[in-house]
Amino acid sequence: MLRRGVVEPVRWVQGRLEILDQRLLPNQEKYLVCRRVDEVVAAIKTLAVRGAPLLGVTGAYAMALAKNNPAAAKKLIASRPTAVNLRWAVERTLKAADPLAEARRIHAEDAEMCDAIARHGAPLLRGKPVLTICNTGALATGGIGTAFGVLVRARPPVVYACETRPLRQGARLTMWEAEKNGLRAYVIPDGAAAAALREKKIRAAIAGADRIARNGDTANKIGTFSVALACHAMGVPFYIAAPSSTFDRDCPNGKAIPIEERDGSEVSDRFPAWNPAFDVTPARYITGFITEKGVLKRP
Amino acid sequence: MLRRGVVEPVRWVQGRLEILDQRLLPNQEKYLVCRRVDEVVAAIKTLAVRGAPLLGVTGAYAMALAKNNPAAAKKLIASRPTAVNLRWAVERTLKAADPLAEARRIHAEDAEMCDAIARHGAPLLRGKPVLTICNTGALATGGIGTAFGVLVRARPPVVYACETRPLRQGARLTMWEAEKNGLRAYVIPDGAAAAALREKKIRAAIAGADRIARNGDTANKIGTFSVALACHAMGVPFYIAAPSSTFDRDCPNGKAIPIEERDGSEVSDRFPAWNPAFDVTPARYITGFITEKGVLKRP
Repeated sequence: MLRRGVVEPVRWVQGRLEILDQRLLPNQEKYLVCRRVDEVVAAIKTLAVRGAPLLGVTGAYAMALAKNNPAAAKKLIASRPTAVNLRWAVERTLKAADPLAEARRIHAEDAEMCDAIARHGAPLLRGKPVLTICNTGALATGGIGTAFGVLVRARPPVVYACETRPLRQGARLTMWEAEKNGLRAYVIPDGAAAAALREKKIRAAIAGADRIARNGDTANKIGTFSVALACHAMGVPFYIAAPSSTFDRDCPNGKAIPIEERDGSEVSDRFPAWNPAFDVTPARYITGFITEKGVLKRP
Repeated sequence: MLRRGVVEPVRWVQGRLEILDQRLLPNQEKYLVCRRVDEVVAAIKTLAVRGAPLLGVTGAYAMALAKNNPAAAKKLIASRPTAVNLRWAVERTLKAADPLAEARRIHAEDAEMCDAIARHGAPLLRGKPVLTICNTGALATGGIGTAFGVLVRARPPVVYACETRPLRQGARLTMWEAEKNGLRAYVIPDGAAAAALREKKIRAAIAGADRIARNGDTANKIGTFSVALACHAMGVPFYIAAPSSTFDRDCPNGKAIPIEERDGSEVSDRFPAWNPAFDVTPARYITGFITEKGVLKRP
């Protein structure tokens, strides 16, 4: 049986796409009701919905809303350029005769992939204090999550969640999901990752991915590269958990991955800021890739 | 001539100690008027005043308020256990016949030390994009600053300031001082430090210190260790700038430095958090120590 996670971040209700507004979590659980693709594009751009696999699911349902209009596909793909799953799911739906049925299949497959990723990854984390970054759970996927799904299945003794500035997906979303799943978890400032690895005797770190190049270089939430370097320096294994659709065969290495830069006002309302949404972790700092097909040492 | 920085973070006015409330910056410039040591202790604990050298200056003036009462000395030293300068300045004032004159001497000496640190450090940074963390300027010292003072003198083409969660001293204080000094600066999320080193071709990083052990292990604001590891991985020199009073001869190595843990509510008002105020960077990751006496490769 598929495990859909403890919350439904997107749902199709009577011909409309309802999107749980993640900007309001953990304080409010409120759905945005989308009737048109532009509303979905706005939800993606403002991060009401986020997480690479969930963006794929969302994009597919949006194509159902748009009745497979190719202009809509273009707008959707452009809404978050780094996330390869979004493009992949939109293009797949565009080729299907029945876009809604295809979106539902993509959703179900994603839940299944999450379960498989968790199954493969859990033995690597069981019994170990684990560090994670950003949100990679039910709120980021069509199922129980990628990296977070592994945690849900492994049930480590304690999880440290990087706050994940500027939008605090770790502090708001991962901590909320940890609570819902009964996992013991602490949020830490992003800068505390290296100190936590040492002081809290963390024995593994795990993150999701927005795009993985052919050579294994991995784009993920800003801060992932810093965590990977700290793990490397301290001999802590660092895993990426992601569905195989995150691997981009057209992309030779990290330099070819477009990195979205977001408005500086997310970081400071008063001073100039540099605010890249993602960074690229070179493959050599990644201990293994946990996918629905198994654990790869090299992609 | 001593350069006192563009702002006065503490000042002695008609028998009272006025403390610029840094919690309100950059939006408001308001002084707390302290008549009693308990008011100073509260200002230190709540971070209305912070920065290791400035805590020394503040502690010395507080001893003048207390007319060198030994119980006051104890309370002051306990208010921030990691900062060695505070203990040093309080104990020195306690031994002086005229505590106010001694506090004024400590203040003037600190301004002089800042100038000397800046003079020694500037050649190392000139012409290079530089990364820094926390606030180490006029708001942290009795003069132009330690690490930030070096920047003021070196005038690098661009400065990247780590936001420095949870209390955002980089985003609020360093950026404010950069503006006041006409330095081109951008704030970045703490997690973006590694990405900035690579993408922005940063060629040096510089931080202050709260305590330096005999072997060179250095306690500084949480996040410093992560920055040092990223610099090490990318071959970027990482400097500590601090007055020689920051070296603690009684402390053999980093393990012996007490690390203050602050309330988790600074990180999250909703979920459990681990919130250490400082971390310890092992000496091997530090390229050099810039002091008022010159640049040391090993302490």
